[in-house]
Amino acid sequence: MKIKYNLLHEEKNTKARLGTIETNYGIVETPMFMPVGTRATVKMLTPEELYDANSGVILANTYHLWLRPGEDLVDKAGGLHKFMNYHGPILTDSGGFQVFSLAKPKDITEEGVHFKSHIDGSKLFLTPEKSIEIQNKLDSDIAMSFDECPPASASYEYMKNSIERTLRWAKRGKDVHSNPRQSLFGIVQGGAYEDLRKFSAIETVKLDFDGYSIGGVANDGESKEDMYHAIDYSIPYLPKDKPRYLMGVGEPRDIVEGVIRGIDMFDCVLPTRIARHGNAFTRHGKLNIKNSKYKEDFTPIEESCDCYACKNYTKAYIRHLVNVDEALGGRLLSIHNIRFLIRLTEELREAIKEDCLLEYRDKFYQDYH
Amino acid sequence: MKIKYNLLHEEKNTKARLGTIETNYGIVETPMFMPVGTRATVKMLTPEELYDANSGVILANTYHLWLRPGEDLVDKAGGLHKFMNYHGPILTDSGGFQVFSLAKPKDITEEGVHFKSHIDGSKLFLTPEKSIEIQNKLDSDIAMSFDECPPASASYEYMKNSIERTLRWAKRGKDVHSNPRQSLFGIVQGGAYEDLRKFSAIETVKLDFDGYSIGGVANDGESKEDMYHAIDYSIPYLPKDKPRYLMGVGEPRDIVEGVIRGIDMFDCVLPTRIARHGNAFTRHGKLNIKNSKYKEDFTPIEESCDCYACKNYTKAYIRHLVNVDEALGGRLLSIHNIRFLIRLTEELREAIKEDCLLEYRDKFYQDYH
Repeated sequence: MKIKYNLLHEEKNTKARLGTIETNYGIVETPMFMPVGTRATVKMLTPEELYDANSGVILANTYHLWLRPGEDLVDKAGGLHKFMNYHGPILTDSGGFQVFSLAKPKDITEEGVHFKSHIDGSKLFLTPEKSIEIQNKLDSDIAMSFDECPPASASYEYMKNSIERTLRWAKRGKDVHSNPRQSLFGIVQGGAYEDLRKFSAIETVKLDFDGYSIGGVANDGESKEDMYHAIDYSIPYLPKDKPRYLMGVGEPRDIVEGVIRGIDMFDCVLPTRIARHGNAFTRHGKLNIKNSKYKEDFTPIEESCDCYACKNYTKAYIRHLVNVDEALGGRLLSIHNIRFLIRLTEELREAIKEDCLLEYRDKFYQDYH
Repeated sequence: MKIKYNLLHEEKNTKARLGTIETNYGIVETPMFMPVGTRATVKMLTPEELYDANSGVILANTYHLWLRPGEDLVDKAGGLHKFMNYHGPILTDSGGFQVFSLAKPKDITEEGVHFKSHIDGSKLFLTPEKSIEIQNKLDSDIAMSFDECPPASASYEYMKNSIERTLRWAKRGKDVHSNPRQSLFGIVQGGAYEDLRKFSAIETVKLDFDGYSIGGVANDGESKEDMYHAIDYSIPYLPKDKPRYLMGVGEPRDIVEGVIRGIDMFDCVLPTRIARHGNAFTRHGKLNIKNSKYKEDFTPIEESCDCYACKNYTKAYIRHLVNVDEALGGRLLSIHNIRFLIRLTEELREAIKEDCLLEYRDKFYQDYH
């Protein structure tokens, strides 16, 4: 079935919304953070560890799975859920972001994008139709339209042409979309240009997607202001009865700011990526476990955290694991960081319900440095 | 408390024994396979994953923990169990094997061994007293005497001098051993020389340890015959009321042969090491999951296996994970391989109980190539 968004409550003092999304794999609550499982695995973790973190939707990457193991293999396995043994909803991106960030040089034509594989340099060609066809076979619950992700630094002229082409691509993708149990989202682009965001949002909504995402905010070089503007310029033109997804964002403060501005869904590789470098989110900001001050610290990463890592291990032990390059170290930090962001969204939902989101934000900022 | 070995049954047609060992952390059944947690972590796995595999005793390495994080830190953490959150019995080796295999060059004196750290080349000196002192602080349930591990290729003269010195080292270690809740094992050496194994066994037993191990069988270059001889030459002189431990052995056939010859305890890095290279134990021998024949194999590694990996994932998925270098691949294979060896010992115990061990061996060999 297609997803169904239910708006439960609009926060009194902000644009924040409390909602649920009905999916093929149960009902999830929004705002939510979605862990990223690039190659059909959230790095180092099992599905059970994600359920324990109260994960809802997780992501997988079309570009990576297209290259390896290939969408046909996943299709033969019975789709992504069976392939990777995840019994919750899965969202696949379109491959666009990876094509524009990983695979260079590239040649953008009306038809699609010519580029070279980041693995072996072989020539590849991705089109809106191909992206949707791959995602249909992956059998995710939510597919994304194929878009161009120009940097915020792009000129007005470039950005205007780009969003017009992205709109044509969105239409072409929608026309070939054929998986009846998969929903399809449109993507609003336009950089930090107010009128282009507005135009992109209005025209994308006309195509009538199952949800809308705001893209182009997680490239290298975008400022926080660019991101907040991108949201503020787009949100007014998105329908209230569809979910809104801010792509590639997962820094705790950005989640708080995104929620305040009306975003329902976030995803980011940050929690697992920083974990592999020994970093942990805490209410007082990020800490690096390698720091010598944790050498004899026999307390958990966060006393108040309910994750498996915090309930069972000390900073001193995790520091040891990271220092001697033992995989369990990154695994425990990944578990903690994912739970941290999911717990943050749980608290944001509670604050929306109680109409005290700005107080929650102020309190959060007081502690978080 | 010290461990207590209970001999439950001697198999009718072999020297195999069924037994239990009472430890500070519960009763474990023998013969048993002990997973290796070199740096206070069985690579990639949590304690819960080891309990799920029905693990009993696990190992940790004195040499590695001495270097990082240091025995004093583990002591401050409340000992190895608390440090690594393992609520089962832990055995620590003496560091001898690592000193002789990892750290070169080395200078063996009566006092101890001078060598260089394999990490930073710094000069180190390990003595029997120091090894025991470190192990006392690590607070493992079973400590090992510090020994020299000469290769089987050593001359008779060298081996004779070596085992005499190892006996003096065993005595010195025992004299300083001071952890009342920790048991101490002696180690029989002597290569493939029958009279030296006999001498080493008899003299080591005179020192009255809580258990005895047979060492020097897992160096590079030892043949299967050397190993079986080492066991056969030693076992007759070991007391029946103490456990017998074959150090560093974990190849499935060697476990079967060791059990037949009267061994109670085995340890090896093999299951986790081969897992990290994409290999899995099966009843039909090892398989390498990277092999293209598993590309579209949507069956588990072993249909008959009850491990988490086999209950939830296909070869095709694990192959994908290994191929794209995702950590979950090695983790799932590690879970399977450890469970495989533990399940093998469970079946061996059953066969001992039923006095049909040789039939079990023949059947096992029929399948295992």
